This record gives sequence, structure tokens and C-alpha cells, in this order.
Amino acid sequence: MSALLEKLEQQKQAYVEPFPSSRKIYVDGSMPGVRVGMREIELSDTPLSDGTFEPNPPLTVYDTSGPYTDPEAEIDFNRGLKPLRESWIEARGDTEKLADFSSEYHHVRLQDRKLEKIRFPNLRTPRRARAGKCVTQLHYARQGIITPEMEYIAIRENCRLQEMKEMGHLVQQHPGQAPFDIPEEITPEFVRQEVAAGRAVIPANINHPEIEPMIIGRAFRTKVNANIGNSATTSSIEEEVEKMIWATRWGADTVMDLSTGKNIHETREWIIRNSPVPIGTVPIYQALEKVNGIAENLTWEIFRDTLIEQAEQGVDYFTIHAGVLLRYIPLTANRLTGIVSRGGSIMAKWCLHHHKENFLYTHFEEICEIMKAYDVTFSLGDGLRPGSIYDANDEAQFAELRTLGELTKIAWKHDVQVMIEGPGHVPMQMIKENMDEEVEKCHEAPFYTLGPLTTDVAPGYDHITSAIGAAQIGWYGTAMLCYVTPKEHLGLPNREDVKEGLIAYKIAAHAADLAKGFPGAQIRDNAMSKARFEFRWYDQFNIGFDPDRAREYHDETLPRESAKVAHFCSMCGPKFCSMKITQDIRDYAAEQGFKDLGVAVEVGMQQQAETFREQGGEIYLKK
Amino acid sequence: MSALLEKLEQQKQAYVEPFPSSRKIYVDGSMPGVRVGMREIELSDTPLSDGTFEPNPPLTVYDTSGPYTDPEAEIDFNRGLKPLRESWIEARGDTEKLADFSSEYHHVRLQDRKLEKIRFPNLRTPRRARAGKCVTQLHYARQGIITPEMEYIAIRENCRLQEMKEMGHLVQQHPGQAPFDIPEEITPEFVRQEVAAGRAVIPANINHPEIEPMIIGRAFRTKVNANIGNSATTSSIEEEVEKMIWATRWGADTVMDLSTGKNIHETREWIIRNSPVPIGTVPIYQALEKVNGIAENLTWEIFRDTLIEQAEQGVDYFTIHAGVLLRYIPLTANRLTGIVSRGGSIMAKWCLHHHKENFLYTHFEEICEIMKAYDVTFSLGDGLRPGSIYDANDEAQFAELRTLGELTKIAWKHDVQVMIEGPGHVPMQMIKENMDEEVEKCHEAPFYTLGPLTTDVAPGYDHITSAIGAAQIGWYGTAMLCYVTPKEHLGLPNREDVKEGLIAYKIAAHAADLAKGFPGAQIRDNAMSKARFEFRWYDQFNIGFDPDRAREYHDETLPRESAKVAHFCSMCGPKFCSMKITQDIRDYAAEQGFKDLGVAVEVGMQQQAETFREQGGEIYLKK
Repeated sequence: MSALLEKLEQQKQAYVEPFPSSRKIYVDGSMPGVRVGMREIELSDTPLSDGTFEPNPPLTVYDTSGPYTDPEAEIDFNRGLKPLRESWIEARGDTEKLADFSSEYHHVRLQDRKLEKIRFPNLRTPRRARAGKCVTQLHYARQGIITPEMEYIAIRENCRLQEMKEMGHLVQQHPGQAPFDIPEEITPEFVRQEVAAGRAVIPANINHPEIEPMIIGRAFRTKVNANIGNSATTSSIEEEVEKMIWATRWGADTVMDLSTGKNIHETREWIIRNSPVPIGTVPIYQALEKVNGIAENLTWEIFRDTLIEQAEQGVDYFTIHAGVLLRYIPLTANRLTGIVSRGGSIMAKWCLHHHKENFLYTHFEEICEIMKAYDVTFSLGDGLRPGSIYDANDEAQFAELRTLGELTKIAWKHDVQVMIEGPGHVPMQMIKENMDEEVEKCHEAPFYTLGPLTTDVAPGYDHITSAIGAAQIGWYGTAMLCYVTPKEHLGLPNREDVKEGLIAYKIAAHAADLAKGFPGAQIRDNAMSKARFEFRWYDQFNIGFDPDRAREYHDETLPRESAKVAHFCSMCGPKFCSMKITQDIRDYAAEQGFKDLGVAVEVGMQQQAETFREQGGEIYLKK
Repeated sequence: MSALLEKLEQQKQAYVEPFPSSRKIYVDGSMPGVRVGMREIELSDTPLSDGTFEPNPPLTVYDTSGPYTDPEAEIDFNRGLKPLRESWIEARGDTEKLADFSSEYHHVRLQDRKLEKIRFPNLRTPRRARAGKCVTQLHYARQGIITPEMEYIAIRENCRLQEMKEMGHLVQQHPGQAPFDIPEEITPEFVRQEVAAGRAVIPANINHPEIEPMIIGRAFRTKVNANIGNSATTSSIEEEVEKMIWATRWGADTVMDLSTGKNIHETREWIIRNSPVPIGTVPIYQALEKVNGIAENLTWEIFRDTLIEQAEQGVDYFTIHAGVLLRYIPLTANRLTGIVSRGGSIMAKWCLHHHKENFLYTHFEEICEIMKAYDVTFSLGDGLRPGSIYDANDEAQFAELRTLGELTKIAWKHDVQVMIEGPGHVPMQMIKENMDEEVEKCHEAPFYTLGPLTTDVAPGYDHITSAIGAAQIGWYGTAMLCYVTPKEHLGLPNREDVKEGLIAYKIAAHAADLAKGFPGAQIRDNAMSKARFEFRWYDQFNIGFDPDRAREYHDETLPRESAKVAHFCSMCGPKFCSMKITQDIRDYAAEQGFKDLGVAVEVGMQQQAETFREQGGEIYLKK
């Protein structure tokens, strides 16, 4: 075993442990190998007033943690996860295994013996589209083909809604309010249609067969991305792999490896091989490392080699800042915070120094050619996103967005999947304009936004300033929310920050799903509230997004086991618990021989009406 | 000195310490004794590229902490704060000092010698309106009188906007988007008009002269309330006083003492005497304690005595659940979580048991008579607010709201100030309906909402689930947001939870102020972003809502002092800092002899156009 991840290996149990009262279940599809992992939370019985118990059906929830929360799964960091999609990719017959890795840089790294200690020990042979073939999910969708990935996604998005309904779960929910339609059930055919229309993407590089397929589109569950990655000042490969696993545990639908420090190539290999979720990168970061951080020295050739290097490792989507055009740079001159996207500022510096147009733009069609050969999805970067409330929605931002719309059409011409990056710092009243502009100018390609942060004034709490904006923009139709951690603007997030950022964003995404009316979104809320009303404390902890913290907070003041069945908590104490009193009221009505509160009140009202007639109660007569 | 607050006394320094680089300043008004405390944050100079420095004017921010952050103020918990408003109240000549406290219960407690150790040692003589007089701010406003309180508030709300503009602060901000108007400057006359119209309230009991006047209304800064208070299972008087001071430090505009445990009377006295912000209570909680927690045993007489007891102590606003009518109780029968307001469930129980109408409703005019004699403001309680997403916006909730609207008219007839309590658990797409209903049915009386929580599924993080909803409803026009702490649904918040809840809500309130376009709201964001772009790390910490945490997070990875002037942080490291690169770009353009980026690009574009004409660059021609 590699000594590199020794600590992680030793602590594996903590990562692979299922959530309390939860187990991994698998739902089989009709296509070979389609077996969708979900999390089932067992709930306790409801004690009835006659001393008997009523069972509560188990709750199934969407699960991003992959095999890590399945005690039956064999986890070996040195081999990586099992390649779930390999047989599907193979069966399509449009790819070939390469004799060797195609990028020059791969070989440079391989020849460096100093790197042996940190190298992933079981490299996969890379795969590429056969000559003349396009292997993107968009291509298949447009051909009318439903891939196993699409069936997997349909099952995953439905998340046993029909079964839960049949089991007796309370599935009623408030109608959503969104300017687009969501069907009552997600079918594989619907998935295909949305992908074919470019309204959704399935980031799934043929060299990342380990992922559990997922979809990013406004008609589906709102997704959350977690950024990880080292920087020049801090953190190791082990920490980054740990953060990736940790992130998927807490709900990351995709993970971006934004490493900018040492050994980016090796770090990424470890992450991809062990990741059950799609991995995104910003290839320009690594390209810049290759020219020692001197932006002017970047060349198309270096960038091109980086794209191929990463595509063959299995990166599922690339952020490409092809919309930062030379003529847009002056538009940032009067900004308060200039250019705050790292990729955007790198490209701006290059453009200005050479007085040339952005090479990502001039070589865009060649980039498409590379990406279609591996099915890497574009995440067209918003290099000119606003870094302060002051700069929100300015001409620089929207000019770039229009260019991204043009590039979207070019990518689609090549059958390459596209999503569009957006926001940054935007006050609430200006968020909707971003969504509307994106839909119009980028032809409904899925929107993928950072936050937005709705104020600049709370460093240390930007997971909150931005969850406010993220929930809103998710409701309006943004398909994936890029999380912000409490460390934003201050430093590199650690493990705990990753979790804080994720939970804040799972909340934002779920609030958005309720608001847009995604089918079944409210089941979990309903189950939680039923458990709450019935004082099933363990169920309250376990249904929540963070069972550990809920329990810890509860136990802080009432640590004894007996308090877990108590009909109150320390907030109000026993006499003041409104839920308990409500139950008392209902019991009282029943005792009095009334089947329901309505009858109890009606009888009371008659008595009362008589009394008041006698007294002529003044306020009463006003009604 | 009373041994009761010994620990607090010893730790006083930590509480009274000003925020870093901040000092208390006072702005004088034209009326006697109007001297408005604010916080001024000193900012460091901007280093220019020629080696010189440009000063940044100090930033003035709204300050709720009262004398506690003024090192010149003498703090003596046993005497309480100085009675800032006493001379104003006296000068109006419409009140009289009573020979003795009027409530029976006061005397019961006073005669109990066991309580001597916990009793506040310097009781104030209570004051009451002279016979036939009304002493409410609403009454004065309707008479056309601008009180010193109103002038104080106008100065406080403006918060030196004009001066900051003159000093060279960047005051530009994005236009707000709200269905109501906010003037460019808050004048005392505007304050009077809003109060006279019932659209704003000034909670200011004549027996709480210690407060710094503040206003709650949609045309003003969005306010935040923090709930504190012990429960039967936990916490002491000292802890509650500590929480109150702590809450005002972190931005609580009002504090509600929701104690339901022991010694409520004495706890409240300590809190009020030492509080610079208005204090609210729910008198029914104490009334219930007086009947040993048996709701059926509550009587109008006990409640009435409690109102007088609390009014003479100085409570500034009372939550009164007078809208929970007998006929509404059956409307909660099919709810998932029944009645979740403590006050609401107590009254429902009473109503149902006696088959009588809510005595708070039947005695409403008598309650008005009491409240007008002390200027206690109504906070008409939403006893039927939804406790789950499932129950949101149902008939029970809106039926009660309509009744609150009727009661508002009655209170206004008596010149008593009114605000309306609302939300609870409401998904995003249903929040606006709450605001619209309130405005229509309650005649624009200020709305004061708990959250709303936008999902039920995140116990341990309900400060976040609800900050999302609070920011939205604040934007729509809610005047005050009642905070939710991370302990909501799990236990009684401690000091740290109070702070977490407050910061989340200050963010929500500030985001709302930006969105509704409150004049000057964006100055702080602009100052922060300027500091950020200029790598003035100390200023970034100090301008933020929590300087301590911002600094702690920054220092976690880069603890050395030298990093506080570094042009990067650990998030991206030195080579990847986009802000640094942007500055490099600007410097580069200047070096090349171009005054600005625009010229640099224009010249470049010409060169480039020639080159591209020669090459016939394909993508280019498409543009």
C-alpha cells in the first residue's frame, strides 16, 4: 500500500461509515448494469395514545456518497473505485483504448523518478473516441439513443417517489412557481430530451467510468458543486483526496479540483480514481504552473497538451474562460474590484500583454474537437463575474455572457455539452436579471453559478451571504450551485469548512427544489415535521442534513437517553412545548367524545353564543 | 456589589471592549439631549504605486451596542444604564411618577425574602400616563409633534450618510426594487409621518428610559430581534443578562426576553435596566407560570396584572396572541405540526377547555387602555404560524392574520402602536404572499417575522434555512426579522448560538436593505470591496460583521503579521491572486504609456486587426 494515503487508510472507517440508521440500497434499471445507489433512512414507530405503535416507512434520499457509505463495498484508495460505466462505454463500440497517454506532459511526469512516491499506482489505460466518432451524451441524445447513463439518472432523480407514495409517505407538496416545466416523473426519455435540447448536461468523461451518472439541468434536482484543491501555500494530496470523499459524504454532486500548487497532475489522478462524482477542473491553472506562473508565456500548445492530459485522466468538465475577449478588458477598468476570476485575470493579462485575442476563443473549435473525443463537458467560465456588489451586472459581465452564448452554439455544433458559469457578488434585486439574461443569451444551456453573494460585508460568513443568493437563483432555474465556504476571501478551506459550505448549499438547493416544485422534494420535509410533532428525536436527527450536529446540539443540554423520547426539549422546557400542548388539545377533544376539534369547537360555540347573547359582549358583536 | 452578576462584572472588559479600530462617536441633534451613538471604524491608507499613501476616510456604521462599547461610559450592572430619555419623558408633562408599583404580583415578589439575593438592587419608581393622557409615540405623531425620539431616530438611520459622502466615500449604489418608497434622506418629519400612518413603530416604554430610540418600519433599515430567556430546564439570570449584552454587541436591534423558567420577574428587571435596546416579552408565558403551567387556570385578571407588572418594569413591546380565535382552532386539526407558537397553543388550550372565546380578544380594548398608559407597543402574535413547510400559508394562518388586521384598527383607535408577527416555516415561492396579505389585511402595520425557514430538513442549521427566507421577506418589506439560532428545534441557545443567529440575520437584514435600496446601505460593501482589492487585510476584518472571526480564519493559514499586507491569501496563493493580477494589468497598461486600459486595448486591437486580416482568423470573421 502506498504510504501516501496512510492516514486516510487508517481513518477509512470514519469515512465509509453509513449515516445513523441509514443503509445503502440499490435500485435496478432495465438496462444491464444500471443499479442506482440510494440512501434509505430507517424510521422508528409512532407511539399511539392507545399504547400501540404505528410504523413509519423508511425514507429514501438522493445519495452522492457512492460506495463510501456502503459497508459491503471494498475501498482501496490505491486501486480506485470500481468502473461502473466501463461496460456501457465499451458496449457502444465507438471508443478505443490507446496504447499510451497522448499528452507530452504525462510523459514528463512519468519520467520524473522523484515523483514515484506520490504517483497513483494503478493508472488506467486511456480511452478515446475512434476516428470520426463523437462520444458525447449530447450526441447520443440527439440520435435518439437512451444511454444507460440516462436511465440511471432518471431512476436516481425519481429517488423511489412512487414506492414511497405506495408505502404511505406523505408526498403532498405545494405547487412550485417556476418559469419552466418539470414533469411529474422523470423518465429516461425525458432525460434524453433535455440533454438533446442542450438544457441539461451529463458530465461523464469516458475516462472516468467510476462515476455514478448525474445530470445538471433546471428540470432536475438542483445540484451543488464543492471546490477543493491545494494552493501554493498549503495542503497535500492526502488532504485533497480526503476533502473529495468528505465532500461527497455531505452532498457534493460534483467536485472541482482547483489545485494551483505542487503536483497538480498527481493530485488529480488520485482524486479522479477515487471519486464517485464528476470532477471538474480549470485547465488554465495547470497550464500556468507549466510556465512558472508567467501568464504571458502561456501558449495554445501548452494549453492544448493540458486539455488532452486532463481529458485522458478523466476530468468530466472543463472551465474554459473563452469569453474574456480583449475588447472587454477595458470594461473592467472602472470596476471596484476589477477581475476576480483567477482564470479571467490570467487570460486578461495574456491578451493585454500580447495585444492579441484570447487564444481560448480563437482556438475554440479545436477545443471542441478534443472535448468531443472524451465527452468532456464545457463549463464556459465567467472570467468577468463581479467581485463586489458595486460591480454586479455591469457591461463587462453581460458582454462576456453574450459571447458565451455564441460559443455555446459552436460547441453544440460539435455535439459537445455545455454549461454556463455565472454570478459572484450580486444583490438580491439584481439576481433574476442574471438568470433571464443567461436563458436568453445562452439558449437555455444549464446555468452554474457561484453563490451569488448578496453582500460583501461578512467575511467569515460568506457561506451564508451566498446561500441566500444561491437559493434564489436556484429557484429561478440555475441548475448547479457552486458552494462558497466560510473561508471565502480569507484562506483555503479545510475539511470543516468544506462541510459547512456544503450543508449551506444543500439547504439552498433543497429550498430551490421546493420552490420550483421538483416532484417529491417535500417528502423529506414532511417526514421531518411528522417526526418533530411526534417527538421522535432520533428520526429528527437522522432525517436531517447533518445527523451528527443535530444530535450533538440536542444533547448539549439534555444528554440523557431518556430525553430522546421526551415530549419537549430544553428550548421551551416541558410545560411550554407547543407541540405537546397541541397534542393535549387533540387528546382533550377526543376525551370529550368529539372525534375532531371541529365538532368540539362547534358545540362550544353554541354554548358560548348563548352566553354572549345574554351578556351582549361588545367585541363579539363587531365581528 | 451584588454577587449575582459577579462573573459578568469580572468579565466586563470583554463586553465593553470596542471593536478593533473602532470608536464610539456621538452625533448631536437639535433637540436637548439628542446625542446619537454610532460606531466609527478607522481605515488604513491605500499604498499607491508611486510609494505614497492615500488616506481612506473613516466609516460610520449603525450601532446597537449602546454604552457597552464606549470606554468612557461607566457600566454598573447594579444601577443599570443611564436614563437617556428621562428628561424627554418628563418634559412632555403627561406622565406621573407613581407612589408604588401597581401590580399585585410585584408586591408578592417584593415580600418574598428568599428573593433578596437575586433582586435588582436599584428599582426605578414607575411612571404612568396622567389620567386621560395618551403617551404613545403614535399619539404624538398624529398630533404633529416631532419627539426627541423621532429626531434621534432620523439621525441614527441616516448614520452620517451626508458626511461620508463629503469625506469622499464611495456612496453609489444600485437602485432598490421594492413596492414602496424610501426617501433619499430620513428626516424627523418623515419619521413622524411613518409613525402617524401606523407604518412604523418606536417601541419605547416610558419606564424604559435607558434605551437608544430605534424604529421598526419598512422605509427604514431592516431590524433584527434576538430572543433570549431561560427555560425550566436551564440557565441563570447572569447568563441571560450576559446574552442580552452579547446580543446588542452583535447587532440585535431589540431583544425579546422569553423566559419561562424560574424568577422571570427578577430576570426581566435585570435585563431591562441594563438594556440599551427595546425589550419585548410574551406576557402569557409569565401568566402561565403564575398558574403553575395549567393553561385552563389562566384568567383575565392574572393576565391583566401581568401586563401592568411588566409595563411598569419597562417592557417596550408585548406579544399578544389575541388572534387565536376559538373557531380557528379546528383549522389546525389537519395540520402536520398543529400549533407551534407557545402562546398560540396556550390560548388554544384555554379556549377549547372553557369553550370560550380567547380572553385576549374579548378584553382587547382593556389591553389597549393599559398599553397606551405606558406606551407599550403591540406585537400582535401569530399563534397559528406554520411549523412546517406542509402547513405554510394555510387557512388557519391567514384567518388569524385577518383578525390581527381588525385588532390593529382597534389599537390604532386608542393610539397604541402595532406591529404584526408572521411567518415560521414557508417555502420560498410562498413568502411573497405572506407579505402581500399582511400589507393588505393589516393596513401596512410593520411586519415582524420569524425567519421564515425555507425547509424543515436541516436541524442544527436553521439560522441558514431561515436567513434565506428572512432576506427575501425583508426585501419585500418586512420591518423586523426575528432571528433563529442554530439550536432551533433542538435546545436553548447559548452565547455562541446567539452570536451565530445574529450574524446570519444581520446579513439577511443588510441584504434586504441593499435590495430595497435603503439610502447609504451600500457604503459598507463598497468600503469592504475597496479594502479587499487593495489588500488592506485589517480593514477587511474590521469593516466586516465579525472582525474576530475574519481575522481568525485568515490567520489559520497565514498567521504572520507580514501576511496582513501581503497581496494574496492562502486560498489562491501569490501567483493566482486575480486581484493582484488585475492590478498588474492596470500597472502594465500604465507602463506602456497608456493612461487607461481602454487605450491600451484600442491600440492592441488595431495591431491585432492587421494581423488577423493577414491570417483571416476564422472565428474572428464570425463576429
